[in-house]
Amino acid sequence: MTDFRQQALDYHALPVPGKISIELTKPAETVRDLALAYSPGVAEPVRAIAENPDDVYKYTAKGNLVAVISNGTAILGLGNLGPMASKPVMEGKALLFKRFAGLDSIDIEVTHRTTQDFINTVASIANTFGGINLEDIKAPECFEIEKALIERCDIPVFHDDQHGTAIVTSAGLLNALAIQGKSIEKAQIVCMGAGAAAIACMELLIQCGAQREHIYMLDSKGVIHTRRTDLNEYKMLFANNTDKRTLQEVITGADVFVGVSGPNLLSADDLRLMADKPIVFACSNPDPEIHPDIANSARDDLIMATGRSDYPNQVNNVLCFPFIFRGALDVRASAINDDMKLAAVHALKDLAREPVPESVLTAASVSALSFGKDYIIPKPMDPRLCGRVARAVAIAAVESGVARIDLPENYFVEGG
Amino acid sequence: MTDFRQQALDYHALPVPGKISIELTKPAETVRDLALAYSPGVAEPVRAIAENPDDVYKYTAKGNLVAVISNGTAILGLGNLGPMASKPVMEGKALLFKRFAGLDSIDIEVTHRTTQDFINTVASIANTFGGINLEDIKAPECFEIEKALIERCDIPVFHDDQHGTAIVTSAGLLNALAIQGKSIEKAQIVCMGAGAAAIACMELLIQCGAQREHIYMLDSKGVIHTRRTDLNEYKMLFANNTDKRTLQEVITGADVFVGVSGPNLLSADDLRLMADKPIVFACSNPDPEIHPDIANSARDDLIMATGRSDYPNQVNNVLCFPFIFRGALDVRASAINDDMKLAAVHALKDLAREPVPESVLTAASVSALSFGKDYIIPKPMDPRLCGRVARAVAIAAVESGVARIDLPENYFVEGG
Repeated sequence: MTDFRQQALDYHALPVPGKISIELTKPAETVRDLALAYSPGVAEPVRAIAENPDDVYKYTAKGNLVAVISNGTAILGLGNLGPMASKPVMEGKALLFKRFAGLDSIDIEVTHRTTQDFINTVASIANTFGGINLEDIKAPECFEIEKALIERCDIPVFHDDQHGTAIVTSAGLLNALAIQGKSIEKAQIVCMGAGAAAIACMELLIQCGAQREHIYMLDSKGVIHTRRTDLNEYKMLFANNTDKRTLQEVITGADVFVGVSGPNLLSADDLRLMADKPIVFACSNPDPEIHPDIANSARDDLIMATGRSDYPNQVNNVLCFPFIFRGALDVRASAINDDMKLAAVHALKDLAREPVPESVLTAASVSALSFGKDYIIPKPMDPRLCGRVARAVAIAAVESGVARIDLPENYFVEGG
Repeated sequence: MTDFRQQALDYHALPVPGKISIELTKPAETVRDLALAYSPGVAEPVRAIAENPDDVYKYTAKGNLVAVISNGTAILGLGNLGPMASKPVMEGKALLFKRFAGLDSIDIEVTHRTTQDFINTVASIANTFGGINLEDIKAPECFEIEKALIERCDIPVFHDDQHGTAIVTSAGLLNALAIQGKSIEKAQIVCMGAGAAAIACMELLIQCGAQREHIYMLDSKGVIHTRRTDLNEYKMLFANNTDKRTLQEVITGADVFVGVSGPNLLSADDLRLMADKPIVFACSNPDPEIHPDIANSARDDLIMATGRSDYPNQVNNVLCFPFIFRGALDVRASAINDDMKLAAVHALKDLAREPVPESVLTAASVSALSFGKDYIIPKPMDPRLCGRVARAVAIAAVESGVARIDLPENYFVEGG
């Protein structure tokens, strides 16, 4: 086993198993402390909440609490390994929520038979939390699950594999298009992959101005078109009336390639078929659809992004989920709606256009970073992210009518 | 509003809402930390667990994690106020698990329609945890719920309102009987109350040697007897073939009175009907079935316990639940069985018979404490509790075949 792999195991096992713990936020040492925290003092907030349900946000941790919930049916790129195998990932997600946005987050792994069982279980425990992040749930069930839970819950329910990826990708793509002098309305887009991330990504690009008929989607069987009889209702949203059947046919003259599938599915020859100033987002993790070195050798007018941290323009969901939840919870939003998602897109897009502080250069181990082909997406360690994205999202929540409290005074305002 | 009540509200609201938070137990500052904690390093423990499911205990926090789960149908003495109103209590329970036994504990509030829905929901999320503490769920549903979950889950499921109360009460009662020179086999027992705590308490006393036919139970309608047609299956376990109908009839000549009902239900006159050297455990909280001052005036040969911290012999569930879970989880027990409950009873009983350290006297604001009528139950702040009770419980788990790992080396051994 490589050194890194053993270090990863040791990181998880030592000195204690796992990555998170639950700690006290109030004193609990003396008899008096405990009389306030529990019997008889706890009867007071109980009575208060019974009389005014919103007081649960005043007297408990609910308002800062996000559940990360999975059934382990699509863990990372490893597939359906079940709920217990997903637990390190879910604890990791909770760790990231805390680390990047100060949100308390607990993981819940669900063992269930039917999709309806999963929905019922999560709906039944939802009120415990301020928001729910669904994770590593396979398509196409994830679409039905998220939709049903959004309907039934009055807290935000957000499947990060869908929308987090979509938001970060869209922000980067809008910047890349701007640099390449292309418009999103006219962009010809090829999407390789037809799962959770792909569907959500393309739908969000359409909300950003892309034209549905300019998007060609491929699954493992090839181009998704109206003559196919094996398409689920989500793939059907991207079935074009076309005679093109292969990647090569649809990528010829395309402006944008988005890969959310697997490794080594795009060749240098395929790349050479694309239009001038092409844009390639090869997001398959850990190995992209085409390796950046190969891609840059094939085309010198390319802008490229991948999921890799060792190449420029990393598409990393951590740029979004901690902050979209932060903004949502801070105004007690009842959902994360499209306005809020678009607000996050534009906040990320705009941030990458600004000069980069020293700390970000240091953390990213680069000497300079300025908006251009090698910097179209903010870096994960950028300290401005929380303020920018959470604020934009919170404002969008308020303006679109899903916030239940006002924007806090001086909310993430510089110097505020 | 009294000063104390406002302090209790402020305690819960300030400086942050609630009493618990989730914190990181591993470094998460640098890019490398995050590569180990999340992508790509987290794939390693995922693969390990997929291959060997027990490794979930090695690489995640599951083995130290207890869920406190309620539906809010019997909150403290306040009744069915619903899941959100129960949240401060459940957070409080989580605080106590951490404070007394170092267990990570998160609260889950369940909103459901039927009892089966509740069972299915909790069973579906159970694998997330190392153990489940059910709390504030009304009788008689709590019996069916706990039984079903014990059957379906391979982690301990324990309704503290039932068994925690039963264990602490039994420990105290055994000591009181010893001091009064009575045997449990011959003791005539009156139990006022027929809910969760009452049923569990009487069943445990029977396991300690009490005779079922020597126990008279009363509910709000009076004595529970075989001619009644309105009894649920749990009350029927205590229906005697008797013509006695009133408290006065059954308490005449009784050795032991256990109250798990409501305030002011036992009078001084009733007390005077009891046998010599009576024992009264008036556990209704916050106001006992009879006030200790009244009781001690009526009988000078009395040993009394209540739920109150301002009188001797407080029956407080915190003497049990943190430690029974600590012992269970430390040997990865699949259940908290009767052997383990009895082990906890005897550990508590025996501890009260030992000399009391200085720190306990200070915390309890008393100058002396020795085994006798005013000290039959250990004090909640006794630092020996965890070691004694958890160790006894863990050993019982191993010896009764429900432990899945061995007793750790030097487990809570003095100096170890």
